[in-house]
Amino acid sequence: MEENEILEAMDYEAIQEKQYDELTELLEKKDRKTLQQRLEEMNEFDVAEFLTEIDDNRMPMVFRLLSKETAAEVFANLEAPEQERIINAVTDQELSGIIEELYVDDAVDIMEELPANVVKRVMRTATPETRSLINQYLRYPEDSAGSIMTAEFVDLKKYMSVKESIARIRRIGEDKETIYVCFVTNAHRKLEGIVTVKDLLLHDDDMVIEDLMDRNVIFATTTEDQESVSEKFSDYDLMAMPVVDKEGRLVGIVTVDDVIDVMEQEATEDIEKMAGMTPSDKPYSRTRPLEIWRNRIPWLMFLMLSATFTSMILTSFESRLAAVAGLVPFIPMLMGTGGNSGAQSATAVIRSLSLGDIEPRDALAVIWKEWRVAALCGLTLSVINFGKMLLVDGLLLSNPHITVAVAATVSLSILFIVMFAKLVGSLLPIGAERIGLDPAVMANPLISTLTDAVSLLIYIFIAKMILHI
Amino acid sequence: MEENEILEAMDYEAIQEKQYDELTELLEKKDRKTLQQRLEEMNEFDVAEFLTEIDDNRMPMVFRLLSKETAAEVFANLEAPEQERIINAVTDQELSGIIEELYVDDAVDIMEELPANVVKRVMRTATPETRSLINQYLRYPEDSAGSIMTAEFVDLKKYMSVKESIARIRRIGEDKETIYVCFVTNAHRKLEGIVTVKDLLLHDDDMVIEDLMDRNVIFATTTEDQESVSEKFSDYDLMAMPVVDKEGRLVGIVTVDDVIDVMEQEATEDIEKMAGMTPSDKPYSRTRPLEIWRNRIPWLMFLMLSATFTSMILTSFESRLAAVAGLVPFIPMLMGTGGNSGAQSATAVIRSLSLGDIEPRDALAVIWKEWRVAALCGLTLSVINFGKMLLVDGLLLSNPHITVAVAATVSLSILFIVMFAKLVGSLLPIGAERIGLDPAVMANPLISTLTDAVSLLIYIFIAKMILHI
Repeated sequence: MEENEILEAMDYEAIQEKQYDELTELLEKKDRKTLQQRLEEMNEFDVAEFLTEIDDNRMPMVFRLLSKETAAEVFANLEAPEQERIINAVTDQELSGIIEELYVDDAVDIMEELPANVVKRVMRTATPETRSLINQYLRYPEDSAGSIMTAEFVDLKKYMSVKESIARIRRIGEDKETIYVCFVTNAHRKLEGIVTVKDLLLHDDDMVIEDLMDRNVIFATTTEDQESVSEKFSDYDLMAMPVVDKEGRLVGIVTVDDVIDVMEQEATEDIEKMAGMTPSDKPYSRTRPLEIWRNRIPWLMFLMLSATFTSMILTSFESRLAAVAGLVPFIPMLMGTGGNSGAQSATAVIRSLSLGDIEPRDALAVIWKEWRVAALCGLTLSVINFGKMLLVDGLLLSNPHITVAVAATVSLSILFIVMFAKLVGSLLPIGAERIGLDPAVMANPLISTLTDAVSLLIYIFIAKMILHI
Repeated sequence: MEENEILEAMDYEAIQEKQYDELTELLEKKDRKTLQQRLEEMNEFDVAEFLTEIDDNRMPMVFRLLSKETAAEVFANLEAPEQERIINAVTDQELSGIIEELYVDDAVDIMEELPANVVKRVMRTATPETRSLINQYLRYPEDSAGSIMTAEFVDLKKYMSVKESIARIRRIGEDKETIYVCFVTNAHRKLEGIVTVKDLLLHDDDMVIEDLMDRNVIFATTTEDQESVSEKFSDYDLMAMPVVDKEGRLVGIVTVDDVIDVMEQEATEDIEKMAGMTPSDKPYSRTRPLEIWRNRIPWLMFLMLSATFTSMILTSFESRLAAVAGLVPFIPMLMGTGGNSGAQSATAVIRSLSLGDIEPRDALAVIWKEWRVAALCGLTLSVINFGKMLLVDGLLLSNPHITVAVAATVSLSILFIVMFAKLVGSLLPIGAERIGLDPAVMANPLISTLTDAVSLLIYIFIAKMILHI
């Protein structure tokens, strides 16, 4: 990059593209020295992107041009297939160099994704300390604070002065995941407080940490769910959070960049569950069809079989519904409207629960609100449908079966179906949360299947009342 | 809190609860002095939570116990109704004190939420500089980098030494949103590079910023979409990002805590759109039924009216389908299975597009993958349904209409319906993204309505083939 590039270019993507073109050219010209220089100047994420783009045979060669520190950070930014390819291409010594440079949380993430034989080789080349640390971290439950924390933090003692603390940060800070939040521990490694580099810089050199530190620490325990950790980050605008074990000893820290990944992952899981899928821990692009099938088929099957109730109802009443011509064709519309109405309520409630905007104890307020929304939506749809059936189906399409009584039956059914669907849609997620189930599974597919059967019953009941079927 | 509280308590929630109880007691005892002390020691978010819990009359009184700095931070953490109540209870001078202490991005957020007459009073009490800054920020497009940035950053010059830079941070750092990333600008305020406090602390005092700064800056432009900003934060693990105007001048910074809010908001919007709702910029708990109705009714109405096609198909073929008893009751199950299958594919594709895991140019790979998943799911469901219809509906429920031919018709329809639904479910979102529409609207409701009509046509076609209806 030219010195004043940023003064000219108005868009980071354009700069990136130029960078890639230059790198590809250097690679073609086999100008390794300049290529090496350029790669060292780049962001690790961009280097990883570049490595993913170039062809598989040359990729490990380019990777080996990187310095030890850069290599580790680029490695952590690669996806599993590229990581595997590199591991297979480097010597044990190079591999060990990478592993020792990695933050332990990145190392653990990588171990969890790689095939068993590759993991074996990686663990063999690691030093005993690193190996035992990785093994310890691998034992924390999936999606717990322990599983996303890292061990590289700055610890201080409360009797240290600001000057001593800054000196310590300067000495040990290089390899820490963050130096901006420092953790004060006692002789038994118990957490006593935190102090930020801002506090240190804005106070006098001879002030003592004890008088400066914040004792009111927001912390997590190793087994705490990562979703609860990310909520605290969002509530308290944190940069890093200490993780303590059952005895209150500081064992690791979670940094905000990991929390961003957790938030993306949790949102994806919720979205997947809401569409009736088992969440996958791999990105879609890297999941094979057979795995996708495994994640999708249970709900599809369950919902297909649950539809048996709807079939049974329809079997019993088919002849009576068919007796008044014009009723049967509106069944799909009624079921669809019920499903969509219920899904809207369920989605709103599930998301609000997951953001902490509402809680199970707000159940009554939510139901009262949804009840009014349902009445408004139901009335609107009912009136519009009445007009539409008479004008479009009756007059325009000249369907002889559309009488005022039929239109009234369908329209009145819409009102009650929407009221029922929105009630169920808001009740089920809150009920699930209350009894400790995940509200996200009470979403669209389940509610549609449930409202399908009830919509049909409501329709039959109202047809009996109005049309005496 | 006792000095060594954290050594005993194992859970932040327990500490919080104890804190609340103590505060309530102090409030009852009217021990203002201790209450004041306790509040100053607490996290601003917890103080805001406490204020929201106590009754409306006493709330402004408690708020006024806070020091000016704490008051501003607590104020920024409150919701609009509480902010309004406080504004109405304080003097112009107190109000001005709060406004001047706020970061400009928080002030802008607050202005956007408050009623017009309250905003007027706030703007009147602000200093002319603050007022013009807020006005400038309010003009940036909604959801742009400009609308989430703040003006309180540390700027350095490239000819400064490390020592001078640290001195500058110590002098001006107190009121900055972050001091950990500093921004190097030239005489024309153009951004030349960034330098972190870590760089400063880990280098010698007499080193010059020019030799230390990172020129390869990830930046955003004021009009850039906030979603693109948050993607960069997630890709590059940033703490803060500079925002430049069209001339490359540094006008503000976005910090990671704001990005966390953006990510939550963007995920919520996607989820809402996927359930056929217009996204709301207010939390559910604070949205009134009439507004909720306005956000939900357009899609409900559109989908209800679109179902006319399905009704028309059913009207045309009702008598022929009814000719073979046992066919009509399976229509809802077939439509449901089609809708659920399509929604799964659409959801997976929409989320992967939004996370950048797949791109529109991957369309062929995605379709090929979904095609194989569809074949697997379709075959499984088809076989299970065939067995279930013969055993459960036929034998167990002794429905005389369930012949092998009927079961074969329904089961074969499932296969083709699932294949069609998954194809449409993956194609529509990718197509939307290609032509610049938001893929999230191509989700469940739309796809269900579409697959409903086609499922019916497939069913009729196969019934013609097998049963010659």
